[in-house]
Amino acid sequence: MAELSGATESGAVVAQRCCLICTLPGYSGVKAEPPEVPVYGYSANKEEYLKRLRRIEGQVRGLQRMVEEDRYCIDILTQVTAATKALHAVAVGLLEGHIGTCVADATAIGGPEGAAKVKEAADAIGRLLQA
Amino acid sequence: MAELSGATESGAVVAQRCCLICTLPGYSGVKAEPPEVPVYGYSANKEEYLKRLRRIEGQVRGLQRMVEEDRYCIDILTQVTAATKALHAVAVGLLEGHIGTCVADATAIGGPEGAAKVKEAADAIGRLLQA
Amino acid sequence: MAELSGATESGAVVAQRCCLICTLPGYSGVKAEPPEVPVYGYSANKEEYLKRLRRIEGQVRGLQRMVEEDRYCIDILTQVTAATKALHAVAVGLLEGHIGTCVADATAIGGPEGAAKVKEAADAIGRLLQA
Amino acid sequence: MAELSGATESGAVVAQRCCLICTLPGYSGVKAEPPEVPVYGYSANKEEYLKRLRRIEGQVRGLQRMVEEDRYCIDILTQVTAATKALHAVAVGLLEGHIGTCVADATAIGGPEGAAKVKEAADAIGRLLQA
Repeated sequence: MAELSGATESGAVVAQRCCLICTLPGYSGVKAEPPEVPVYGYSANKEEYLKRLRRIEGQVRGLQRMVEEDRYCIDILTQVTAATKALHAVAVGLLEGHIGTCVADATAIGGPEGAAKVKEAADAIGRLLQA
Repeated sequence: MAELSGATESGAVVAQRCCLICTLPGYSGVKAEPPEVPVYGYSANKEEYLKRLRRIEGQVRGLQRMVEEDRYCIDILTQVTAATKALHAVAVGLLEGHIGTCVADATAIGGPEGAAKVKEAADAIGRLLQA
Repeated sequence: MAELSGATESGAVVAQRCCLICTLPGYSGVKAEPPEVPVYGYSANKEEYLKRLRRIEGQVRGLQRMVEEDRYCIDILTQVTAATKALHAVAVGLLEGHIGTCVADATAIGGPEGAAKVKEAADAIGRLLQA
Repeated sequence: MAELSGATESGAVVAQRCCLICTLPGYSGVKAEPPEVPVYGYSANKEEYLKRLRRIEGQVRGLQRMVEEDRYCIDILTQVTAATKALHAVAVGLLEGHIGTCVADATAIGGPEGAAKVKEAADAIGRLLQA
């Protein structure tokens, strides 16, 4: 998460637990105290997202095959719907992780930075609804 | 917010600042410390939501008029789209408020309650996407 | 449907069967031949749409009550989701009716008018998806 | 479109112009008369869809890269939103084509088959809205 500027003194630590870590197996709530030691153990969770995205990639390739084979429009639409649903599920997972870590850390610090993080997440939800 | 069970010792206070307060004019970030004194001053914000919802009610009544007057389907659809968009905007506003107060307070406390609050919000986003 | 200009000689008749008629009980397919006699018998169907829209109006009023009573954000969001879903159901019903009558009549006539009617419906679907 | 059963005598011809042909350059409205000669000239249009789907595949691969590189959640969400939007645009294009050909042909024939085709398209729109 190189994009997160370490504007606060705890910024570096915040960055390290943000964002994909939060749905790790064993994740149980969010501490107000960012961890002292960087958490690099989210590979399991990353793998889960990568697996899901590879499956979506497969769905999109399946769509290309369907078009090439002149498949029935409604069947293609059904597959488009499935891929959209899968992307939405990824988005909801990412939002859950983001709110539980990045946003939680920022609101724990408080101030305009907290509000900005909350607004940024809400704006992302708004854009997703209008996709 | 009678629904929030005061499971933690700070539960009662959490309830008092949750949820509509957060987009109050003058809102500037989220404090980790819930206010000692109950905040009842969110009438300005509530009025904003009520105004928006009354406008949406007006749009839905307008839809009834259009159907009664046999208006063109596409024009009715345009108005349905406008009402949906307005509901989505209300939802995003509520989510911003909720994440910035209820969820922030719960994640500041941490533990399974924090994670549950984050998951509850994510589930609500997921349902909204599938509406 | 006063908006439909009677550009073709059968325009007036087209207008009369468009749009809400199509989901009438007893509706069974769409004839290429527009009816010689105006069809005014869609009151049953209109009533169905009005009933649905009145229910949505009730949901939006319920939302105002929830805000007034400081109900829990997530519960309000659940109700926003229900109202959105109900609006979407109305939209899909209107589209089914519109495609089965207005669009069908226009494509039966053919030419640029047919294509324009199809495009107009597709654009409305696109806007609805981005609401 | 091998899925379309040739239930009516004109079924074979219907199948040949269904579905991707309809947004061909030079497409100008929908004829009530299905073409006597099979139309195989929609390769240009298919290529357009394949190009768009390949671009979406690239977006999904880009998402995998972003996860691998621990990019910021909100940036990943922005890309998920872009991919969803692109899928929706494909869906709207397919629907426009489908309504202008398959559905138009079925409603021109009329009867329960016409109504079924219209309902099938409306159901697909409903599923897409709930994706």
